[in-house]
Amino acid sequence: MTAEEKEKFLGKITDKAETLIEALPYIRDFNNKIVVVKYGGSAMTDKSLEESVIKDVVLLKLVGMKPVIVHGGGKEISRWIGKVGKEPEFIDGFRVTDDETMEIAEMVLNRVNKNLVQMIERLGVKAVGISGKDAGMMHAEKKMPNGNDIGYVGDITTVNPGLVSALLDNDYIPVIAPIAMGAHGATYNINADDAASAVAVALGAEKLAFLTDVEGVYKDPDDEESLISVLTLKQAEELIEDGTISGGMLPKILNCTDAVKKGVGRVHILDGRRDHCLLLEFFTKKGVGTAIIDGSKRLYYNEK
Amino acid sequence: MTAEEKEKFLGKITDKAETLIEALPYIRDFNNKIVVVKYGGSAMTDKSLEESVIKDVVLLKLVGMKPVIVHGGGKEISRWIGKVGKEPEFIDGFRVTDDETMEIAEMVLNRVNKNLVQMIERLGVKAVGISGKDAGMMHAEKKMPNGNDIGYVGDITTVNPGLVSALLDNDYIPVIAPIAMGAHGATYNINADDAASAVAVALGAEKLAFLTDVEGVYKDPDDEESLISVLTLKQAEELIEDGTISGGMLPKILNCTDAVKKGVGRVHILDGRRDHCLLLEFFTKKGVGTAIIDGSKRLYYNEK
Amino acid sequence: MTAEEKEKFLGKITDKAETLIEALPYIRDFNNKIVVVKYGGSAMTDKSLEESVIKDVVLLKLVGMKPVIVHGGGKEISRWIGKVGKEPEFIDGFRVTDDETMEIAEMVLNRVNKNLVQMIERLGVKAVGISGKDAGMMHAEKKMPNGNDIGYVGDITTVNPGLVSALLDNDYIPVIAPIAMGAHGATYNINADDAASAVAVALGAEKLAFLTDVEGVYKDPDDEESLISVLTLKQAEELIEDGTISGGMLPKILNCTDAVKKGVGRVHILDGRRDHCLLLEFFTKKGVGTAIIDGSKRLYYNEK
Amino acid sequence: MTAEEKEKFLGKITDKAETLIEALPYIRDFNNKIVVVKYGGSAMTDKSLEESVIKDVVLLKLVGMKPVIVHGGGKEISRWIGKVGKEPEFIDGFRVTDDETMEIAEMVLNRVNKNLVQMIERLGVKAVGISGKDAGMMHAEKKMPNGNDIGYVGDITTVNPGLVSALLDNDYIPVIAPIAMGAHGATYNINADDAASAVAVALGAEKLAFLTDVEGVYKDPDDEESLISVLTLKQAEELIEDGTISGGMLPKILNCTDAVKKGVGRVHILDGRRDHCLLLEFFTKKGVGTAIIDGSKRLYYNEK
Amino acid sequence: MTAEEKEKFLGKITDKAETLIEALPYIRDFNNKIVVVKYGGSAMTDKSLEESVIKDVVLLKLVGMKPVIVHGGGKEISRWIGKVGKEPEFIDGFRVTDDETMEIAEMVLNRVNKNLVQMIERLGVKAVGISGKDAGMMHAEKKMPNGNDIGYVGDITTVNPGLVSALLDNDYIPVIAPIAMGAHGATYNINADDAASAVAVALGAEKLAFLTDVEGVYKDPDDEESLISVLTLKQAEELIEDGTISGGMLPKILNCTDAVKKGVGRVHILDGRRDHCLLLEFFTKKGVGTAIIDGSKRLYYNEK
Amino acid sequence: MTAEEKEKFLGKITDKAETLIEALPYIRDFNNKIVVVKYGGSAMTDKSLEESVIKDVVLLKLVGMKPVIVHGGGKEISRWIGKVGKEPEFIDGFRVTDDETMEIAEMVLNRVNKNLVQMIERLGVKAVGISGKDAGMMHAEKKMPNGNDIGYVGDITTVNPGLVSALLDNDYIPVIAPIAMGAHGATYNINADDAASAVAVALGAEKLAFLTDVEGVYKDPDDEESLISVLTLKQAEELIEDGTISGGMLPKILNCTDAVKKGVGRVHILDGRRDHCLLLEFFTKKGVGTAIIDGSKRLYYNEK
Repeated sequence: MTAEEKEKFLGKITDKAETLIEALPYIRDFNNKIVVVKYGGSAMTDKSLEESVIKDVVLLKLVGMKPVIVHGGGKEISRWIGKVGKEPEFIDGFRVTDDETMEIAEMVLNRVNKNLVQMIERLGVKAVGISGKDAGMMHAEKKMPNGNDIGYVGDITTVNPGLVSALLDNDYIPVIAPIAMGAHGATYNINADDAASAVAVALGAEKLAFLTDVEGVYKDPDDEESLISVLTLKQAEELIEDGTISGGMLPKILNCTDAVKKGVGRVHILDGRRDHCLLLEFFTKKGVGTAIIDGSKRLYYNEK
Repeated sequence: MTAEEKEKFLGKITDKAETLIEALPYIRDFNNKIVVVKYGGSAMTDKSLEESVIKDVVLLKLVGMKPVIVHGGGKEISRWIGKVGKEPEFIDGFRVTDDETMEIAEMVLNRVNKNLVQMIERLGVKAVGISGKDAGMMHAEKKMPNGNDIGYVGDITTVNPGLVSALLDNDYIPVIAPIAMGAHGATYNINADDAASAVAVALGAEKLAFLTDVEGVYKDPDDEESLISVLTLKQAEELIEDGTISGGMLPKILNCTDAVKKGVGRVHILDGRRDHCLLLEFFTKKGVGTAIIDGSKRLYYNEK
Repeated sequence: MTAEEKEKFLGKITDKAETLIEALPYIRDFNNKIVVVKYGGSAMTDKSLEESVIKDVVLLKLVGMKPVIVHGGGKEISRWIGKVGKEPEFIDGFRVTDDETMEIAEMVLNRVNKNLVQMIERLGVKAVGISGKDAGMMHAEKKMPNGNDIGYVGDITTVNPGLVSALLDNDYIPVIAPIAMGAHGATYNINADDAASAVAVALGAEKLAFLTDVEGVYKDPDDEESLISVLTLKQAEELIEDGTISGGMLPKILNCTDAVKKGVGRVHILDGRRDHCLLLEFFTKKGVGTAIIDGSKRLYYNEK
Repeated sequence: MTAEEKEKFLGKITDKAETLIEALPYIRDFNNKIVVVKYGGSAMTDKSLEESVIKDVVLLKLVGMKPVIVHGGGKEISRWIGKVGKEPEFIDGFRVTDDETMEIAEMVLNRVNKNLVQMIERLGVKAVGISGKDAGMMHAEKKMPNGNDIGYVGDITTVNPGLVSALLDNDYIPVIAPIAMGAHGATYNINADDAASAVAVALGAEKLAFLTDVEGVYKDPDDEESLISVLTLKQAEELIEDGTISGGMLPKILNCTDAVKKGVGRVHILDGRRDHCLLLEFFTKKGVGTAIIDGSKRLYYNEK
Repeated sequence: MTAEEKEKFLGKITDKAETLIEALPYIRDFNNKIVVVKYGGSAMTDKSLEESVIKDVVLLKLVGMKPVIVHGGGKEISRWIGKVGKEPEFIDGFRVTDDETMEIAEMVLNRVNKNLVQMIERLGVKAVGISGKDAGMMHAEKKMPNGNDIGYVGDITTVNPGLVSALLDNDYIPVIAPIAMGAHGATYNINADDAASAVAVALGAEKLAFLTDVEGVYKDPDDEESLISVLTLKQAEELIEDGTISGGMLPKILNCTDAVKKGVGRVHILDGRRDHCLLLEFFTKKGVGTAIIDGSKRLYYNEK
Repeated sequence: MTAEEKEKFLGKITDKAETLIEALPYIRDFNNKIVVVKYGGSAMTDKSLEESVIKDVVLLKLVGMKPVIVHGGGKEISRWIGKVGKEPEFIDGFRVTDDETMEIAEMVLNRVNKNLVQMIERLGVKAVGISGKDAGMMHAEKKMPNGNDIGYVGDITTVNPGLVSALLDNDYIPVIAPIAMGAHGATYNINADDAASAVAVALGAEKLAFLTDVEGVYKDPDDEESLISVLTLKQAEELIEDGTISGGMLPKILNCTDAVKKGVGRVHILDGRRDHCLLLEFFTKKGVGTAIIDGSKRLYYNEK
């Protein structure tokens, strides 16, 4: 080793030590804590990103956290609807979901669900795939946007987290398809973001992480260095009032602040396109996305 | 009430008392015992029979037993294969299962699975639907009948009953779709009878009941009064040797005796077309089908 | 089998299934519930009825209930008093109980007690015979009817159910003789109905059943078809007010409503002369006697 | 205080300290240990001795031991037999026990039993009186001395200590009447010494103490200072061989050595006429009676 | 034995029985109770008294109590200060404790601590020596008598009894050196009486015993027969008011009444120069010192 | 951010993710595992290194490991011996330890011990300082090098790990001074390396780490790049045979292989002069020192 190589080597060693010293206290703090990960978007369609996400979730489990995955159906539902020769129909941006569409959606979501389970199993950790029907976990009623009947699209009415808790207690990673039971034996399709939020609230989760296609919230949307690392409820309100948060980001943030108000410890908006964004957000001081918190509650020892 | 009415009423009362006195000791004996029910055939395609079976399973649960359902896919798989315009192909009586067929079979079986869960839930009991992928419960390898590759049809290699036990311990009725994990991320379709047997053995079940389209085993196939109520392993061997058991019944009985030899308490062949056949077989002295037992082990107090 | 025989057979099978479907939910509901049975009257003097009652109690235990027997002394006390040449003496209908009478009563009741224990043991279930002296279970003070001192006849002052609970927890059937401790080492004879009530209340029993020599309460005492199956506290008050309940039945019913008010789930008045009246009352919808309940509390799933 | 009084006072204080230093290690050693006390003879007929024995048993319980009392019937059985005008009849020294005699014996023993319970209760400790019928605790068969049928006198065949253990675990003092169940519903009278031995062996008791009318075993029966404090099995054999132990003492000692061989820690022969003989034997180095031990097993820290 | 010897022997036996009858109820009452013993003064410098105290503490442990020792440093600290050639310096009666003095005091106290541990171990009981630094058990701030800075002498601010409780739960005798942690890594010397009081209060001890060089509190200081056996809080106040308690005894008694007010069951002032004073005070009715109690709380069964 | 800065930033982020992915599986594997750290040498005399070591130990605890510290006395013992004017005396390289030297050594070691405890406490984790005397944890006999009596220097005879286990179970970090009890109340000074080994073996520790003044074992002592990362027992034997391991390193390595043979999972030789050597050795694949393992046992998932 030349002197330069040696110096570089020592620098790397020092960096490693620093990363560990930074990460270890979080690992203690997050031990046995529940984290709900909403998995969808680009991270679901790119095979390599999918592997990165699943590996992160498995590592979270390995260090003692209790991850729960809530997933969407990606582009598979549309593919199968096409396959049986149906024309998709939309009202107000919502897919009209008739009997046959619901049947296909349920079949596809359950298969996506079992495939995620299988991927996790292959990394040596046990997972169990369920939908909102299992143990009557999620009940819903018909959504009526602007008074229109768009079929079997539902709004969650109750979540009974007993089964998910039992699976966590038995050391399984629950993987949840966003399907709910309705009255009279009906089946409803649920928006996956809503399902993730509702499950996190019902479990009293420590964390809820949305894997999205944006990096987080910016102070100045045109300046990528203005990413906000931590956002308190109060700050969020101000940014909404002054118009910084608007457009498509607005409902997303409202969903987040709502979950925090209902008891979720912190909600993270992460860029699912970045490799290992879950690890970097959870185990480094600055993180890589935006965390929404209740500023009036005490932070962890050295949490960002 | 006339004297005749009164007598009839008292007779009915006495009958009820007798039925109870007959049934109560079984209820004690079967408390906390696991019973695996293979559900398929006619009982699956007739809506009223389906309700009778599900109600029986719920009642078994209510009186303290631990039922587990293993189901087939009925005619739904064929229906959906037709829907996407595929021609079914058979070799040696086995459906050739290519990638797309397997994909459809998995989707359909998972949906049937969740529908059974939903039916049970509506009767006020909690159920959880899983496949062999969940918690890596069932692993399989490719079946090669006469050396032919018929695609994703598998033979079970291992059953890990941990998840099923955990669900039972948490008071859920597990409902199992006959799908297994293979090497390299493959998915295999499994014969439902085989899956039920393997699960019953792995759980050390007290009972394994096959709902079939026959009443049981007959001494004289032409005499319906010659139904055999209890068949020991030794008697079964004799009936096979003298040709009484043959044809399609032979592999079925071999499957049953195999399960008994591997530790299942008793295996019942029942006629799924008879209403409440499970209750009548389990809680009356004579029963209504054929029970295969190991004659060398002690019977319950007043078991047939 | 002729067609007629076959039909009859199928009818019987269907009846059995119905009886089971009717009974099974109760068995779940009553699992681990305490039922106190006051055993006396005709059911105690007829050997065959005695066997029917003991068999019912054993079956209740077998299906998971927790029966407790409180018994009287039948005609044995008088027989022994005669044997030692004493003349029985009564004041206001109460037996005057001097030292020697009390000594005989205690001896006789304890022997009756152990004989019931022995009968239960012979049916394969474990029983333990105690009196109110054991573990200081029942304390009493002198009863003074109309101010008359009639000796060692007592009114219960306190019941300490610790021993009975411990016996139930250890899977024994407690059999209780109605004797209590008094001040200064005195021993008191207690009315068995009062003892049964007091024990049921102290245990927070689900059920208290009196085996009597009547069928129950009638709307019209002259019409045996007017037997009241379920009587709420409110209805009982009305029947007392309008004079339907009067005479010897009045104090019995007041005893029952009192127990219900103090927390016993339901009190049953049964005809101990009917075989298996306990099973028929508890496990059929209509029952065979009169149940007194608090109408404002929720019923079981399908309880009469 | 004069100097002399002071000296006497200090001497007394020193004596107390010495007694305590002597006793405390035993209290530790005997904590949670079971001691079976056979109570009968003079200690049972003298009111003041009875109080001394009961007080000792209560104190043993208070310092953490687990006492069990097995009692005889004293002279009460004969008194009641006389009362109903029966002539007692003896064969080979055994009372002939016909149906009626057995009935009286059972009644009397159960009443004596409950009276002991009541005495203990009055000292603030909880006791439960049982006979060998309760929980099928003691089974017996007919004793046939020299082939003579003397009626319902039994030899113990089995002891099931489950109920006694359960009572001890629940902090009760079990008080046992020497009555056993026989075949076909028969009741047998048992010798109280035999019952005490059998119960101690079945419980694996640390101690078995016989309250007798002698001080213990003497080396020289004519020299009261030759009382043997501790006797090993080996020494006992020698004393039997050389004739020192003979006559009425012989069967008693054989009973003791038999219990030690079957696992009882030590068997004490005590003079029930001496006040507080149990305390003095158990908590002083020299004791006041004779202890039979297995000399090959290790002694307690400072046991005699 | 002559008649006189015999009588004397019997008298001694009777005395022993009486001492036991007197002591046993206390042993029950004090089972599992915590007793904090402040050990210092003459009892610490005399080798034979030291052995008597340690033996008593070991016996208290053997009979089920939970003793805790808090000790001083005796004359060892001064000896070592002399050894390194330092001149002791006092202000207002307090030793001025500079850095080096504190270092020596800590070293000496820890060694005395381990020696006591070793003495206990040699009697067959397990002990663990700790100081207030262990598990952050005792925190202190600088004491400023009359505003003077006398160095590292501290007043206790908080006691965290977790470690002591854990040691007691694991059956160890905790031995505590009076050293506490201060702010910024400072170490403070604590008065041993104060430490004992604070520890007893934090543990909710049943007893706190000070081994002193006086016999207790006297009604008339000149009359040694006027020793007060039990002193209620109210009586103590009166004796302080009328001047009976004054001088050096006053702060001692205030310390005691303070501990009682804060929940210690009773505080004993004992003469450490009397052999086995702990046993005699705890296990006899009259005791040998003065016990301070809250007169409004109920006494034990037969406590002085 | 310039493009270069951005690239550097992304590189750093990627490095962090890699470090975490590398470290997390170890954290899982080491959860609840015991690691004994021998602390001495340079790491003890340099204040900044001391802080680095203590911080590492605290972090190990925070992520779920169970660290135990065994320390030496550094230069403090010599300093105090000088202070009281004693001349140190050595035989065969061993310090002659007379009464007074032992007294000083014990005092100093206990004070060093409590100071380490205090440092750990200040980082928010609870520690408890003990010596081999506490709970009789370590017993020793006189060491006689070459037959010379060098006073109170001992060889360990037995280790009773009960107290250390209890402290670990109660979530404390045990800090151990190398002092042992001898016969007849003697106190012995123990070599800290030996004490650490013996404690690790007695606890069945997963890891034993020696903080030394060398980097580890080299294949070629003159080539610092030839450091051996993992050494199996077999390889160690070969290196000893061919003379690669010799001189002062030989007894150290023999000590290590001995511990591995007695069941310690792996023994690490680390350079205590490198900051955070414990974290880097335990949580990176290559580590920074030499690990001695039993090559025939299975490695962790991705352990070096």
